[in-house]
Amino acid sequence: MPEPKNVLPLLLALDFGGTKHAAAVVNGGERQWLAHRRALSPPNADASTDLKIMRSLIHELLQGEQPAAIGVSFGGPVNASTGHVRLSHHVRGWENTPITSLLEAEFGVPVSVDNDANVAALGEHRFGAGQGCDSFMYITVSTGVGGGWILNGRPWRGAEGMAGEIGHMVVDPDGPLCLCGKRGCVERLASGPYIAQQVRECLQRSPSRGQLLRNLVGDNLEAVTGQIVSQAATLGDELASEVLETAGWALGVGIGNVANLMNPQRFVLGGGVTKAGASFWEVVRRVARETALPEVHFDIVPAALGDEAPLWGAVALANDLAFLN
Amino acid sequence: MPEPKNVLPLLLALDFGGTKHAAAVVNGGERQWLAHRRALSPPNADASTDLKIMRSLIHELLQGEQPAAIGVSFGGPVNASTGHVRLSHHVRGWENTPITSLLEAEFGVPVSVDNDANVAALGEHRFGAGQGCDSFMYITVSTGVGGGWILNGRPWRGAEGMAGEIGHMVVDPDGPLCLCGKRGCVERLASGPYIAQQVRECLQRSPSRGQLLRNLVGDNLEAVTGQIVSQAATLGDELASEVLETAGWALGVGIGNVANLMNPQRFVLGGGVTKAGASFWEVVRRVARETALPEVHFDIVPAALGDEAPLWGAVALANDLAFLN
Repeated sequence: MPEPKNVLPLLLALDFGGTKHAAAVVNGGERQWLAHRRALSPPNADASTDLKIMRSLIHELLQGEQPAAIGVSFGGPVNASTGHVRLSHHVRGWENTPITSLLEAEFGVPVSVDNDANVAALGEHRFGAGQGCDSFMYITVSTGVGGGWILNGRPWRGAEGMAGEIGHMVVDPDGPLCLCGKRGCVERLASGPYIAQQVRECLQRSPSRGQLLRNLVGDNLEAVTGQIVSQAATLGDELASEVLETAGWALGVGIGNVANLMNPQRFVLGGGVTKAGASFWEVVRRVARETALPEVHFDIVPAALGDEAPLWGAVALANDLAFLN
Repeated sequence: MPEPKNVLPLLLALDFGGTKHAAAVVNGGERQWLAHRRALSPPNADASTDLKIMRSLIHELLQGEQPAAIGVSFGGPVNASTGHVRLSHHVRGWENTPITSLLEAEFGVPVSVDNDANVAALGEHRFGAGQGCDSFMYITVSTGVGGGWILNGRPWRGAEGMAGEIGHMVVDPDGPLCLCGKRGCVERLASGPYIAQQVRECLQRSPSRGQLLRNLVGDNLEAVTGQIVSQAATLGDELASEVLETAGWALGVGIGNVANLMNPQRFVLGGGVTKAGASFWEVVRRVARETALPEVHFDIVPAALGDEAPLWGAVALANDLAFLN
């Protein structure tokens, strides 16, 4: 009689990303997706549209097979211990959705969920730029600025699962007004849409500045995005460089403050804005170093998993469930 | 033959406080000191003077008895895992002193050391305002502004034992210059000596202001201290109230930023400045609440152990050692 084959557990990873969703399957312990699917949310999507899209991705991937466990990254506040989504800032109808029980009932396997920043931190810890690091903060600088913690080798979520909100740390109380009602939050100075807004306002105020930027968008200021600002800065546009320098400064002050407060070994930075080029990174690193006390050491490194950090973190969540059983 | 009596272990707690030292003994599990001694450091003290003073306090207390373990609070950066003092900011000669091995060799019992803010946090956790709290930050607002963390019910010291430095979080980049070289640190705006300095500068600039303050110090501006500023504010002096409001604002922004970042259940505030009265506390609580995101909840409470927090924390350190053996 042949020995039973040592089968690796099949793990399903889901990423509810606000405007885009992704799902993938992997054999536990392996580093290559068996299969991977993405889909965009339609405009005016709500929670049930999102769930429907995700369900169809899952069925395409699983083709009738049953995974050993499911890990879920959600783009918004989550109660990780009860498995409820608190809300989505982008999509209506998610309030108090018991996403864990929904999926457990549907697929008959254990499910674990957390918010995208925490899950991405876990992904970078197990598979990316935080490997071997006992304490680090993952920061994503993108449409918003968020973060997740690994302390003592495990996620630190805070008393209510809200830890990591470096985006709403005030670094300039006389700075511009943030959506949250405060002034000079890190997110208000360093997130992609706010960088674009800042540049648009400067272009409107100073008709002689930013020729390079104006050329890139054919004089249509509405077309300015964070990405175009980065591009213009790389090409030598002074205004673009100035706004990115302020963004890097804000992020650097935030990181230096956090270093003084928590003394982690490392900061792992991901998200679109961190692709703004070498001089952006130079400002972030210099200002963080100046803000931290001389006795406090850390490094600041780019995320290794890019947009896939939440999915790989979801794999880690699923993996831990599979090994519990 | 009589049953052996169930003897509680005798614990020795030491507090090297910069300018003042304290030592006490307690029976493990009890909440009353068996004996307690304090001594001031002479001017120009160095590490060996400090150790000599402490040795004489210890011998007075122990009277030949041997404790089960010794816990030590040190007023400066410490490597808690190796038991070395890194340095003292107030007293020379402490650099790289292996204080744990020194005391272990001398008294023949296990010794544990940590910096005063971490030890005070532990004291408040076991015996004070942090009891039953799984996550909180202890903040002392005194000659300096420092802090210590309890996360998951245990001290969080950071990768190098430097965590808790909320005093050097920048909250106003256009603010006054701090000793650390940055502008607008929490400590620069909220510590006792800086509050006094700010008031002195205002009194010099505006001869018509602060009559009440001037009366309290007999027109000798050098005699203004943080405590006198608090007193003047309570008596209705506008200038004193204004400077204390800025201090409360800085502390409130710092606490709100920390709440967003770590989402602890509670902040426990100790140190002389926190005795500045109800309106100071009102500002701290209001600004912290405004700075934190609406979804992030916490309370801010006064420390329960006062100046004895480091000693009671040292008891906790000694207790944990005694129970290991």
